Amino acid sequence: MAMEKQVENKKNERRLTKKGKETRARIIAAAAQLMFERGVSGTSVEDVQNEAKVSASQLYHYFKEKRELVKAVIVYQTEQVLNAQEPFLSHLDSMEALKSWRDAIVQLQIERQCQGGCPIGSLASELSDTEPEARTELAAGFMKWEQSIRNGLQTMHARGELQAEAKPDDLALALLTALQGGLLLTQVYKETRPLKAGLDAMLAHIGTFTI
Amino acid sequence: MAMEKQVENKKNERRLTKKGKETRARIIAAAAQLMFERGVSGTSVEDVQNEAKVSASQLYHYFKEKRELVKAVIVYQTEQVLNAQEPFLSHLDSMEALKSWRDAIVQLQIERQCQGGCPIGSLASELSDTEPEARTELAAGFMKWEQSIRNGLQTMHARGELQAEAKPDDLALALLTALQGGLLLTQVYKETRPLKAGLDAMLAHIGTFTI
Repeated sequence: MAMEKQVENKKNERRLTKKGKETRARIIAAAAQLMFERGVSGTSVEDVQNEAKVSASQLYHYFKEKRELVKAVIVYQTEQVLNAQEPFLSHLDSMEALKSWRDAIVQLQIERQCQGGCPIGSLASELSDTEPEARTELAAGFMKWEQSIRNGLQTMHARGELQAEAKPDDLALALLTALQGGLLLTQVYKETRPLKAGLDAMLAHIGTFTI
Repeated sequence: MAMEKQVENKKNERRLTKKGKETRARIIAAAAQLMFERGVSGTSVEDVQNEAKVSASQLYHYFKEKRELVKAVIVYQTEQVLNAQEPFLSHLDSMEALKSWRDAIVQLQIERQCQGGCPIGSLASELSDTEPEARTELAAGFMKWEQSIRNGLQTMHARGELQAEAKPDDLALALLTALQGGLLLTQVYKETRPLKAGLDAMLAHIGTFTI
């Protein structure tokens, strides 16, 4: 998106009244839920109108085209995922903390009966090749996630709890790949075995660098 | 699918003439390509007709509903992916072989400019929660892939090249999760760093069990 347009959007957002903000938030939440269930291309603007109980002109007031709505959904889902994991993500600086995070992720999939996979991963799989703006937004979301993991590992490294030759950047990215693959295969197999196998192997790998 | 229907389908397939088989194969290849590019819900039966240059009644002759076509596409894509990797998959019984496989996978993504991710993974992300028959077929595809990896690791284990406490089943599944997550994040980031980080970490983990 061009810088001008971004600025314009931000202005528009600031200009919204409290009620306007609530309506916009309701539209995004409805769109996010539908796109999570049916995918982006399986969700029409009309579906979102019905789900959010807004008129076509109301929806158009906030989002001029589906593409804008999709971007808002990506930002929303990234926030949802990272906020839900926040208590863990801000302190991934010990093997115990990494294991607690792993347990919480596995537990969530059990509660969800292995439905849904990763809300950001699903959007990424559908949009990365066909929607360049969405891809940029998705990459930014994943990089935030990666950054949180990296922060914890860098802290361990700086404290001398990981060997000097350990590379927190690579380890953080590797852990995020195991998490994403684990969530996808857990969604396919409908059991948490892949998620556990992926995360446990990656934590064992990180563990080999501890002092 | 009920057993009767499966038997009936198999019968129908056997009954096809050479030309009929070619037409059926052309329809599946066209559908696979479109679904790879646009997703399943972004691909209509009409799109497939146009791409495969067949009439509506011809397409209906082979596939009574889109669901049947989707199943055929899953089987086709699984064969494509596993056949392309076959020279590696049948001999993943040494660290060198695992590394050569890793290099080939990374090289393929470079050649594809990090487009497409995993054709089976993309279908899995879209269909696993909403299409139970498709999910079963996708899980079967992934399990074949997992089995090939496991066979190599079990051979190493049986030969005493992996420590007794190594668990080839878990390691194979962990490696497949790193591969899937690596392909997805490579598609999002449009660089092979995630794929390399995921696979290299997992191979290093497997390496810790070598004797």
